[in-house]
Amino acid sequence: MKVLVINAGSSSLKYQLYDMTDESVLAKGLVERIGMDSSILTHKPTGREDVTEVSEILEHTTAIRKVIDILTDKENGVLGSVDEIQAVGHRVVHGGEAFKESALVDDASKAEIRRLFDLAPLHNPAAMMGIRAAESNMPGVPQVMVFDTAFHQTMPEKAYLYAIPRVLYKKYKVRRYGAHGTSHDYVSKTAAEYLGRPVEDLKIITCHVGNGGSVTAVQGGVSVDTSMGMTPLEGLMMGTRSGDLDPAIVPYVMNKEELSVSEVNSMLNKHSGLLAISGISSDMREITEGMENGDANSTLAFEMYEYRLRKYIGSYAAAMNGVDVIVFTAGVGENSVVLRQKVCEQLTYLGVEVDEALNAIRSGEPRRITTANSKVEVLVVPTNEELVIARDTHRIVLNSK
Amino acid sequence: MKVLVINAGSSSLKYQLYDMTDESVLAKGLVERIGMDSSILTHKPTGREDVTEVSEILEHTTAIRKVIDILTDKENGVLGSVDEIQAVGHRVVHGGEAFKESALVDDASKAEIRRLFDLAPLHNPAAMMGIRAAESNMPGVPQVMVFDTAFHQTMPEKAYLYAIPRVLYKKYKVRRYGAHGTSHDYVSKTAAEYLGRPVEDLKIITCHVGNGGSVTAVQGGVSVDTSMGMTPLEGLMMGTRSGDLDPAIVPYVMNKEELSVSEVNSMLNKHSGLLAISGISSDMREITEGMENGDANSTLAFEMYEYRLRKYIGSYAAAMNGVDVIVFTAGVGENSVVLRQKVCEQLTYLGVEVDEALNAIRSGEPRRITTANSKVEVLVVPTNEELVIARDTHRIVLNSK
Repeated sequence: MKVLVINAGSSSLKYQLYDMTDESVLAKGLVERIGMDSSILTHKPTGREDVTEVSEILEHTTAIRKVIDILTDKENGVLGSVDEIQAVGHRVVHGGEAFKESALVDDASKAEIRRLFDLAPLHNPAAMMGIRAAESNMPGVPQVMVFDTAFHQTMPEKAYLYAIPRVLYKKYKVRRYGAHGTSHDYVSKTAAEYLGRPVEDLKIITCHVGNGGSVTAVQGGVSVDTSMGMTPLEGLMMGTRSGDLDPAIVPYVMNKEELSVSEVNSMLNKHSGLLAISGISSDMREITEGMENGDANSTLAFEMYEYRLRKYIGSYAAAMNGVDVIVFTAGVGENSVVLRQKVCEQLTYLGVEVDEALNAIRSGEPRRITTANSKVEVLVVPTNEELVIARDTHRIVLNSK
Repeated sequence: MKVLVINAGSSSLKYQLYDMTDESVLAKGLVERIGMDSSILTHKPTGREDVTEVSEILEHTTAIRKVIDILTDKENGVLGSVDEIQAVGHRVVHGGEAFKESALVDDASKAEIRRLFDLAPLHNPAAMMGIRAAESNMPGVPQVMVFDTAFHQTMPEKAYLYAIPRVLYKKYKVRRYGAHGTSHDYVSKTAAEYLGRPVEDLKIITCHVGNGGSVTAVQGGVSVDTSMGMTPLEGLMMGTRSGDLDPAIVPYVMNKEELSVSEVNSMLNKHSGLLAISGISSDMREITEGMENGDANSTLAFEMYEYRLRKYIGSYAAAMNGVDVIVFTAGVGENSVVLRQKVCEQLTYLGVEVDEALNAIRSGEPRRITTANSKVEVLVVPTNEELVIARDTHRIVLNSK
């Protein structure tokens, strides 16, 4: 079965075409600047040259039509006909409490996603545009929604409830949902496989740290706690997000600076984090460079980022009464040697013993970075959210037949 | 030297009179319902019967006059004359960044406290009323301010800064200050003494859990991190405070429920925490009782409270790369056998081994509750913030002469 994976943002659309017979990627790409007159389609057929096209793409239906055009293009395509696409999988950020696992797209599931617009006002409407656009371009092809939140639906009440009036949960479903679920799911299972141990027997802490970031406590193969909350603002310090904060600061700053609700949200989500502290960048590579060049603000930004990540690891070790495996993944987690080094060298109290040479290796494969004596295994596992979406889509479509 | 310790709230005033020759308490008491026509003065002279007086006390100057009257009363008093009070020590909640230790009351320090009204709008104005009332009742008697925040002024930048635009720190001093500093200071030093080890050599986590609560990482005798933030809202779940929360929930709820800044502050500070989850009480004794009677909401409230406290312990173990001593103090920490038991039995990964019999002992003295084999010492240390205030006052007044 060939599965097209779609990750639709409000003005962008990523795609990846899988052949599920061997889980190979036939092509992937990205449409940027949707809604503008000079939208850019970058198409990457596996093993061949990238192709870039600039054209006017005003909405997602056109974007997907362009994607299908290039996938079936005589010269740059990888398909004889659009009919070869037998299923479409969509990344959906927020599945609320309704979706504990991936689901077929139908009227009921679409209605539920619409009800969740309120909890994910930036993300879910974009996913819905992607779903509609795929439906109109590929009528009759089964589609599946894969949720960032679903993996975390196993959290116990004591981890997902906030200590605020319960009417807010009843009326508005204010609770912890978490995010990056497909990634935490994938890397925790991949880590267990790599170690040759049943995931059910392990206490794993997965650190998905990229531009956004979250840490998850995975016990017995299921998420028992995670650092992102009702929204992706809570938890770790991120590229442009503040992460944890005295909640009283929000009304205080609104009052002082006469900010509206949307202005304070924008400040905390887009103008905080590494960017605010370093004053130069939200990108860990540039922060690390600044630190190496002796820039005090970059050094402070790095130290805060590292410190807060380390404290979450400690917190989840206490949550599970121990930890067997710590996994680093996503952009920063997979690539920042110095971040992993600094985190691990302050975790010797857990028995972590990092091997500097192993930690310095760069590879696209899962790998251990601790010594044979280390009491906790620390791994780097490249994440692959698209593959999880493709697998779920494949499985659900097969089962529905 | 006889020292009067005063803890002034907006409508209450607690006092304690010390004889510093042997640090004995001559009398203590409380004025409640200041500003009403039936204010209540409860006076407890040491070793004698309590005395209760109801009268009209409209402001703090009258309250302190009544306290002096009863301290020097022929029948119920403990002093021949007010002149025996040679110094007055005041509890001040917020010392900002200006006060890294206790300070003599003078024009400059009073002006500074006034500048901090904005950061502690409920507490510092009350402390100022207490100071003015003491000045007018005991002119010429030296007075000292002892701050809840001062002990935490040793925190490094990476622990006290929030990952938000730095202009908010520069303009409004938005940062972590912490609280209960006199308590964390006192119990960490008392724990080290009890163990016969220099506090400089120890990594200590102090859990001050009462109606309010905070956890502090004390390394080398100084605070390196603490769970309360710019305000006492951040950190642990408390009697009526939410503690940690996705900051995005604040504008979300304000929007949904059309709440003002002061209404949302009130919701998070007065109608959250144990009270909101249990639906019955903010008092851990009643929650525990509810739990023992099988009440599901009380059980959930207890579990959340315990879980969040345990996660902070884990977090600070990671912050210091280990922990030698965990201290429980304040109302809940000193008295809740079941809370300590539940926390400790999920910390075996740190080598904590609690002795159930020792944990069940009730006493007013510092004591160990772990076995001889435990790798981490867990102690219960009754706090004594008034004694710290008296000691600081005594020392500073002596040094200023």
